[in-house]
Amino acid sequence: MDALLPHHDGSALHVSTQTPAIGDTVTLRLRVPVGYGPLKAVRVRENPDHEPRWTDARLTGTAAGWDWWQADIVVENPRHGYRWLLVHEAGAGASEAEAAPAGRGHAGRTEWLNQSGLHSIETLDSEDFALLATPAAPEWLAETVMYQVFPDRFARSSAANAHAKPEWAIAARWDEPVDPVLPGRSKQFYGGDLDGITEHLDHLTSLGVTMLYLTPIFPARSNHRYDASSFVDVDELLGGREALIRLVGEAHARGLKVIGDLTTNHSGSAHEWFQAALGKPDAPEGDFYYFTNVEHTEYVGWLGTPSLPKFNWNSTELRRRFIEGDDSVVAHWLKEPYNFDGWRVDVANMTGRMGAEDLNEEVRQIIRRTMEDVNPDTVLLAESTNDAASDLQGDAWHGAMTYPSFTRPVWGWLTEPGDTSHVTADGSIDREAWFFGQPIGGIPNYSARDFAEMTVRFTASIPWRIRLGNMNALDTHDTARFRTHAPAENVPLALALSVTLPGVPVVFAGDEFGLSGDDGEMSRTPIPWGTESDAAVAPTLDVYRQLIALRRDLPTLSHGGLRWLHVADDSLVFVREDAVATVLVVVARSPLTVTLPANALGVELGADGASPAFLSGEATLASAAAGLTLSTAARTCAIWTLPGVEHPGIELPGA
Amino acid sequence: MDALLPHHDGSALHVSTQTPAIGDTVTLRLRVPVGYGPLKAVRVRENPDHEPRWTDARLTGTAAGWDWWQADIVVENPRHGYRWLLVHEAGAGASEAEAAPAGRGHAGRTEWLNQSGLHSIETLDSEDFALLATPAAPEWLAETVMYQVFPDRFARSSAANAHAKPEWAIAARWDEPVDPVLPGRSKQFYGGDLDGITEHLDHLTSLGVTMLYLTPIFPARSNHRYDASSFVDVDELLGGREALIRLVGEAHARGLKVIGDLTTNHSGSAHEWFQAALGKPDAPEGDFYYFTNVEHTEYVGWLGTPSLPKFNWNSTELRRRFIEGDDSVVAHWLKEPYNFDGWRVDVANMTGRMGAEDLNEEVRQIIRRTMEDVNPDTVLLAESTNDAASDLQGDAWHGAMTYPSFTRPVWGWLTEPGDTSHVTADGSIDREAWFFGQPIGGIPNYSARDFAEMTVRFTASIPWRIRLGNMNALDTHDTARFRTHAPAENVPLALALSVTLPGVPVVFAGDEFGLSGDDGEMSRTPIPWGTESDAAVAPTLDVYRQLIALRRDLPTLSHGGLRWLHVADDSLVFVREDAVATVLVVVARSPLTVTLPANALGVELGADGASPAFLSGEATLASAAAGLTLSTAARTCAIWTLPGVEHPGIELPGA
Repeated sequence: MDALLPHHDGSALHVSTQTPAIGDTVTLRLRVPVGYGPLKAVRVRENPDHEPRWTDARLTGTAAGWDWWQADIVVENPRHGYRWLLVHEAGAGASEAEAAPAGRGHAGRTEWLNQSGLHSIETLDSEDFALLATPAAPEWLAETVMYQVFPDRFARSSAANAHAKPEWAIAARWDEPVDPVLPGRSKQFYGGDLDGITEHLDHLTSLGVTMLYLTPIFPARSNHRYDASSFVDVDELLGGREALIRLVGEAHARGLKVIGDLTTNHSGSAHEWFQAALGKPDAPEGDFYYFTNVEHTEYVGWLGTPSLPKFNWNSTELRRRFIEGDDSVVAHWLKEPYNFDGWRVDVANMTGRMGAEDLNEEVRQIIRRTMEDVNPDTVLLAESTNDAASDLQGDAWHGAMTYPSFTRPVWGWLTEPGDTSHVTADGSIDREAWFFGQPIGGIPNYSARDFAEMTVRFTASIPWRIRLGNMNALDTHDTARFRTHAPAENVPLALALSVTLPGVPVVFAGDEFGLSGDDGEMSRTPIPWGTESDAAVAPTLDVYRQLIALRRDLPTLSHGGLRWLHVADDSLVFVREDAVATVLVVVARSPLTVTLPANALGVELGADGASPAFLSGEATLASAAAGLTLSTAARTCAIWTLPGVEHPGIELPGA
Repeated sequence: MDALLPHHDGSALHVSTQTPAIGDTVTLRLRVPVGYGPLKAVRVRENPDHEPRWTDARLTGTAAGWDWWQADIVVENPRHGYRWLLVHEAGAGASEAEAAPAGRGHAGRTEWLNQSGLHSIETLDSEDFALLATPAAPEWLAETVMYQVFPDRFARSSAANAHAKPEWAIAARWDEPVDPVLPGRSKQFYGGDLDGITEHLDHLTSLGVTMLYLTPIFPARSNHRYDASSFVDVDELLGGREALIRLVGEAHARGLKVIGDLTTNHSGSAHEWFQAALGKPDAPEGDFYYFTNVEHTEYVGWLGTPSLPKFNWNSTELRRRFIEGDDSVVAHWLKEPYNFDGWRVDVANMTGRMGAEDLNEEVRQIIRRTMEDVNPDTVLLAESTNDAASDLQGDAWHGAMTYPSFTRPVWGWLTEPGDTSHVTADGSIDREAWFFGQPIGGIPNYSARDFAEMTVRFTASIPWRIRLGNMNALDTHDTARFRTHAPAENVPLALALSVTLPGVPVVFAGDEFGLSGDDGEMSRTPIPWGTESDAAVAPTLDVYRQLIALRRDLPTLSHGGLRWLHVADDSLVFVREDAVATVLVVVARSPLTVTLPANALGVELGADGASPAFLSGEATLASAAAGLTLSTAARTCAIWTLPGVEHPGIELPGA
C-alpha cells in the first residue's frame, strides 16, 4: 500500500487567494495524513528580499483522516516564495540514514516540502511554492480548452476560390498529400481562409473547445506566414481584415475566445520594416534589426535563416511601433473592430536575446503592460518549447507553449516508438534526428514514473498560477501528430491526461479526426471535412467530445489541486481536488491493481464511486475499511467524480 | 562494487579554457568507462539565446580504462550553458523502467549528464554545465586559504591600551568570557586592534593561510562594527588608517592577501550619511535610505532594526559615493596607500532588494566594474548564506560565503548534535530555534549521502568557475563554532573536506586553537595567545598546518575536477584530479571497506599508493586486478597523492 504524504499546492484548498497584492496577508494550509509524525512543529519558511523568515503553523482541525495546519504570511515580493518545514518529535520516525550512524543523539527528523515534493535535506529557492503579486491572467485562461488552427489547412470558404493566388504559391488540391520537400514545404498552398473557419465554428462548439488559436494571419510569402511582410494587414488570401472581423465576431457570439500569433523574434525579409531598413542605415527602421555591416546589407537571421531577420529590441522606435502603447501592433488587434482575446508569441524564448544581450524580460513586460492598458481581459502565452521556468515567474507571460512538462513525456510513455524516420526539407530521409528537434535517436521509452518525474521536474520552478496557463498539447503544427505513433486505444489515455492535469488542454485541429503526420510539416494536414461519421473517425471524435465536456463541466479540473496517489512503472493515479469535487484519475497502460489507504481521497466514494464519469477500457473502484482498491485492464483510463474535499472550516486571514 | 559513470566537470581535464570570450571555440571532453554502453552517439546540447543547439562529439582515444569523447563549441552568451547527451545502441543497457512495458519496440536508452549528475529524463537549464564569458576572478582566488579575523577579538598590540575607550564600550579583560546578553552582546569591548594582527602575522604564515579577511574596521558603535558611522575612516580604536597601512604592507610583504568587509545593504544609524539625511528630506543624502514619512524621521531598517537603516540603491548620488567610480568607497580602499585585495560584502543577498524592487544585479555589477577599473587583481565575495545560485552566475560576485553547499552539511554529518541550547540577546535560553538561524530543532542528523547530496544540490546551478570561489567554512563569526559540537577526532575529517572539496577553505581565527562557542556571539572568542604548545591545542594546530600545507602544495585541490567514487551512509570517497595529480580522499565516520573497479582512478597507484599524504585514523589502499580495495577504521581521513590522469592527447580547438 502506498503511503500518504503531507501535501500542499497552490490551489484554493491550500492558499486563500490566487491574486494577492504586496502587503496582503495570505493564509496557507498544509494537510498531513493522520498518524504521520508525530510532528513537533510545522513552519513556513519564506524568503522575502532573499532572507529567510519563519512562521509557525497551527493545527486547525482534522477531517476525513487528514490533519490541517495553517499559517498566515504577508506577501512582500512580486514572486513570493515559500516552503514548508515539518519537525518530527526527536527519536520518532527514524529514517534509514538516521539509523546508520549508531549511538548519535540527534534532533528530530526534519522534512521540507516544496514544489518538487518532500525532502529530507534543504531545498532550492527555485523550487519554492510561490505567490504572485503581479497582474494575473484572466480567470478564464485556466478554464480554456484551446483549438489550434493553421489557417491554410483548415477550410476553404465558398469565397476562397475567388482570392487571387500569389506567384510564390504552389496550388494544392484539398485532398493532396502534404509535401515536406522544398519548395513545396513552404509554398504548397491549400487555400484555407478565415471565412472557411467561420463556416466551421459549429464544429468547434460541438467539440466543446472554448478558444480558437490562429497561427499567423498576416500577409507573407509562405503557407505558414511566420515570415510576415506586415503586421497591420490580414492576408488577402485569407479574406483580409473583414474576414477576420467576421470570424472573431461569430466566435464571440458563440462564446469562443480567439487569439493570434505574433512573431517578436523576427519578421519576414519581405516585411515593410525590413525592406525600409535594408541597405538604408539612415532609415527610421535602420536600427530595427541586427545589421552586421555599415551598408546594412548583411544581418542576423533566425538560426541563420536569411528570410527571417532578427529584431533588435534596443530600438525605441521598434518598441513604439510594435509593442508599446495604444498605437502598437500588439494593441491594434486587441481593439475594435478586431477584438483578439490575446496573443501566443512565437519564439518567445529567443526574443530579445542575442549574444551578450538579453532584453527578453524588458520586451515581454512591455508587451503585457500594453495589453493590460488596452484590455486586461486578454491572455499572453509564450512559445518556449524547452525548460521554460526562467521566463515564467509571473512578470508577463501567463503561460507557455512548452513541451517537457507534458507533451514530450506523454509521447515517451504512450506512443509505440518504432520507426520515426521522415522526409526532410531537401527530400532526404532523416532516420534519426528528431524527437521535437532533439537528436536522441527516436522517441524515448518512458515509464509512467518517468512521465510523472518530468511533469514534476519541469513545473517545480513555475508558480502554480502560471502552471495553470501552460499548454498541455499532444502535438502542434510544429511536431509530428501524436496519433502517428500511438494506437487509437492510447488516444483516450493521452487526451485524458491533457484535460485532467493542471494546464490548458490543446487540440491541434485534425487530431479529433485521428489524423497522423510524420513531422511538423506533414502534420499540417487539411481537415477531412465530411468524414465525421466515418467508422474510422467517429469514435475518436466522440472521445474528444466526452473528455472536453468533462473538463468544462468540472471546474476542479481547471483550478483544483493535484495530488499523486500512485505512480508505478506503467500506471498513474492522481486526484484533482477542491472544496466542490474530487476528481480521481487513473491511466494505466498495463493492468493495474492497487490498494490505497482508506483516507487516500479524504472523501467518501458515495454513489458515484461505482460509475466512472469517463471510462475507456475496464476499471473498478471499491472502498473497504482496509483501503480503496482500484483495478484496471490494460490501456485503461477511468475518471471518477467524487464529493469535494472535507476539511475543517477555513480560518480567515487575521481571524 | 560501485559502478563507474561517465564524467565531466568544468575543470581543465574537461574544458580547454576557464576564461573564454564570446565567439571563442572551447573544447569539451567527456570520459566514459570502457565497456559502458555501447554508445551510438555522444552529443553536446547547448542553449544559446535559449534555443537548443547540438554538436556531435567524437571518440578521441582511450587511456587507463576510459574512453575520451570530445566536442568543440562556440561561446555565444555570457553564461553559456551546455549538457551532454549519451545515446545508447537500441536494445542495449535496458533499464528497469524500459523492461517493464513488455513488447515495446523502442529507441536506444538516452542519458543526460549535467551538474547534478546522470539522468534518464530531460534536465533543467539551471543545472547545465556553464562557461562564463565574463571577467574572471584572479586565478589566485581558487588557490586561497582564507583566515577570518574579527578585529576586536584577535590581539591587542602594545599600543592598544593607549587607544581612548569610547563611552559606548564595556571594557573586557582578554580572558573574560564573551557575554551574549545585551548590552554586552554588542558593547563588550576587548580592544583588539590592527597592530595586534600585524604583530601576529607570523602565526598566519606558520599556519599556511594565504589571505586575511577582516570583518569591518570602520568606526562604529559596536564591537562588530557592522553599524559603520563612516566608510572613509578606520576606527581609531583599531589604530586608524596608519595601522591599516602597516597591516596590509606587512601582510603583502609575507605574500598574504587582505580583504575587507563592506555593508552594502545598510549602514549604522550613526553613519554620517544617515545623520545628514535623517529629518532632512532635502539633504543630498535624502534619498540614500528608505524613509517612510515625508519628514524623513521614519525609515526601513535591516530586518526591522532601527540602528541599521537600509540603503536605497535608486539614488545615483549614493552609487557615486559608495560604489561607482574611482572616488567611491569601493575604490578608495583598493588603492594606495591601503591596497586591499578585495571585498567580502555583507548581506549581499538582500542588497538592493526591497518589496517590489530588485536592484541587486545592477548594484553588484557596478561594484565589480569599479573594482575592475581600479585593480582587476582583486576579489569580490558575497555573503549569501542560503541558496546562492540565482546571484552567482558570473556577472559580478566571484564566489559567496554560503552555507548549504558545505558548512551545514558538514555539521549535519560530522557533529554530535546533543544539546544546542544557548543564551540569547535578552538573557533567556533558546532551547530550539537555531541551526544557522533555522528553527529546525537542532543540528540535523545527516548521513554522508545527505552531505554529498546537499553539496551537489547547492552547487549544481553554479558555474564551475564560481564554485571554486565559494567559501567552505566550518564556521564563521556568525555561527557557533564547529568544535562546540564535534569531538576533536572529527576535526581532521571536517577540515579535510574543507581543503579537498572545490571552493576556498576558511579558518575562522581561533578554530585552530580548538575554541568552542555556542552561537554567533559566543564564537567571537579572544585568541588564547601563548597556548600554542599546550597539549590541548598543539595537535589541533598541527592538523591545521598539515592540511593547509597539503592544499597549498597540490594545486589540483584548487583547480582539479571532482569525481565521487563511493558515497555511502557514513563514508565518502572522491578524487580531485588533473593532468598533474590525482588526489584520492576518503573520509569515514564508521569503518569502511570498499572495492572499486580497477579503472576507478584511471591512474596507477605507484609507490605513493601505500602511504597517504595525510592520515588521521587508519586506512589501507591496495590495488589488484579485481579492483582497488580501500579500508579504514572509524573516524578516519586519508588522502593519497597519485599521478595525474592519463588521457589521450588533447586536440586543440579547430584542429
